[in-house]
Amino acid sequence: MRLLALVEYDGTDFAGFQLQARRGAAQPRTVQRELESALSLCTGESIRVFASGRTDTGVHATGQAVHFDTEAPIASAPDRLARGVNANLPEDVKIRALRTVAPTFHARYSAVRRRYRYRVVSSRAASPLRRRYFHQVRAPLSAERMDAGAQHLVGKHDFVAFAAEEKRGPSTVRRVYQADVRVAQTWQTWAGEPSVWHTFHDSAQLIEIEVEASGFLRHMMRRIAGTLIRVGDGRLAPDDVASVLASRDKALAGPTAPARGLCLESVTYPAAELHYLQEAE
Amino acid sequence: MRLLALVEYDGTDFAGFQLQARRGAAQPRTVQRELESALSLCTGESIRVFASGRTDTGVHATGQAVHFDTEAPIASAPDRLARGVNANLPEDVKIRALRTVAPTFHARYSAVRRRYRYRVVSSRAASPLRRRYFHQVRAPLSAERMDAGAQHLVGKHDFVAFAAEEKRGPSTVRRVYQADVRVAQTWQTWAGEPSVWHTFHDSAQLIEIEVEASGFLRHMMRRIAGTLIRVGDGRLAPDDVASVLASRDKALAGPTAPARGLCLESVTYPAAELHYLQEAE
Repeated sequence: MRLLALVEYDGTDFAGFQLQARRGAAQPRTVQRELESALSLCTGESIRVFASGRTDTGVHATGQAVHFDTEAPIASAPDRLARGVNANLPEDVKIRALRTVAPTFHARYSAVRRRYRYRVVSSRAASPLRRRYFHQVRAPLSAERMDAGAQHLVGKHDFVAFAAEEKRGPSTVRRVYQADVRVAQTWQTWAGEPSVWHTFHDSAQLIEIEVEASGFLRHMMRRIAGTLIRVGDGRLAPDDVASVLASRDKALAGPTAPARGLCLESVTYPAAELHYLQEAE
Repeated sequence: MRLLALVEYDGTDFAGFQLQARRGAAQPRTVQRELESALSLCTGESIRVFASGRTDTGVHATGQAVHFDTEAPIASAPDRLARGVNANLPEDVKIRALRTVAPTFHARYSAVRRRYRYRVVSSRAASPLRRRYFHQVRAPLSAERMDAGAQHLVGKHDFVAFAAEEKRGPSTVRRVYQADVRVAQTWQTWAGEPSVWHTFHDSAQLIEIEVEASGFLRHMMRRIAGTLIRVGDGRLAPDDVASVLASRDKALAGPTAPARGLCLESVTYPAAELHYLQEAE
């Protein structure tokens, strides 16, 4: 029986979802290892999980999709299994939903879209309550300029200029369905200011960059964020995003923005897979 | 010279702002100790700080107000001093603003209002990304019922029913200026759901309880939150809040809700103090 889990994690204290390579004798803590350990304990089997994609060290997820196979009787009651697994998972990774899928379903190969969100706070002073989930910059940023720059990403392009330096798969072409930059409405409620401070309070902004694409090259979202931040602070023009893309030259893109600001929000599967899920009720 | 600092901290890894009492030889980590240590280093003096009020172990603050005295020359350039202090503070506590005040100003005794926010998430599944700053409950909550209950708190009342068990000051009367409970608008953007999950996604809600009062008894805000959560899940009626208050009986109030959901948002000082601040420009 194949099951699909919706998994949320706080990436701060993980060496990513999955180990990228052996780094010596010490095994860093990964999301995959925690999931497999809790699932194996609850099913009595040796479970191997497959995610929609790897996330790097420090990257978060609210909607990572993970599938695995099991013959354990408890798997026919996914809600009970999810509760049991969650009771055996640490606080920073939990299954939010669990469901039977077709035996042909694959969390990575069946996925048609991934959506990432990058959160950046521009503020003179560092914010302790935002340090884990937001990248903080001191320069004021223009979300309008960033959004104008982001529109150049939409469509089918070779994103090699935004890829990591390492070796890659055969194709660096991806389709971006949506790219938006906005000042998040959450800021006002999150940062209460006493009236006494009004004359010199911090003019901080929380900006969210959201990109939905067929897939992402390694570091692609973080290099897009690093590039758009340079557009936001004036070091690049919005149209420079188009030039960077067309150049296929990594040296022209912005730096890889820190992992802490990045979150895998959701993964989308085609209607046929969805249909199967409904039939299985 | 007396200075007033606006301080933000993530209370998770602190034993509160200030030690409540000696707990043996080991000195737990407190916000006060971190601030005094960084301030003393930057001024070359032995600095003692005074806050608007203590916060308990695990309680956060975005707008804690803290004053201290120094004769160091750098204090005449508060922005420079703040930067120096922040460079010597750990990641989970920072000064957001720093300003000269009158020598008669006192962060605790000059304060006329304090505003706290309590954040509770009601969800079937625990959320790793919310665990540090939100209290999580499984039961569905009605924010409308909670808000109706909260209105009974507004006005000048004896809040002894909501106080901690320990010894208290001479008066347990406080004035609540405002008490609001609402479903926070931040939820939708924070929890992206892929369309595949729509048939069984988690119907979670983020609810914020905000109370502004002349002052708070120890544990008062957390016991108000614990009581309102019982109103929200149906174990108490909204009008029971009035009965609990009138009873002056601690046994009738709800439990003390966990510290992680609580945040000191702001402290307000009277116009005269504000006036002085403006003159000092």
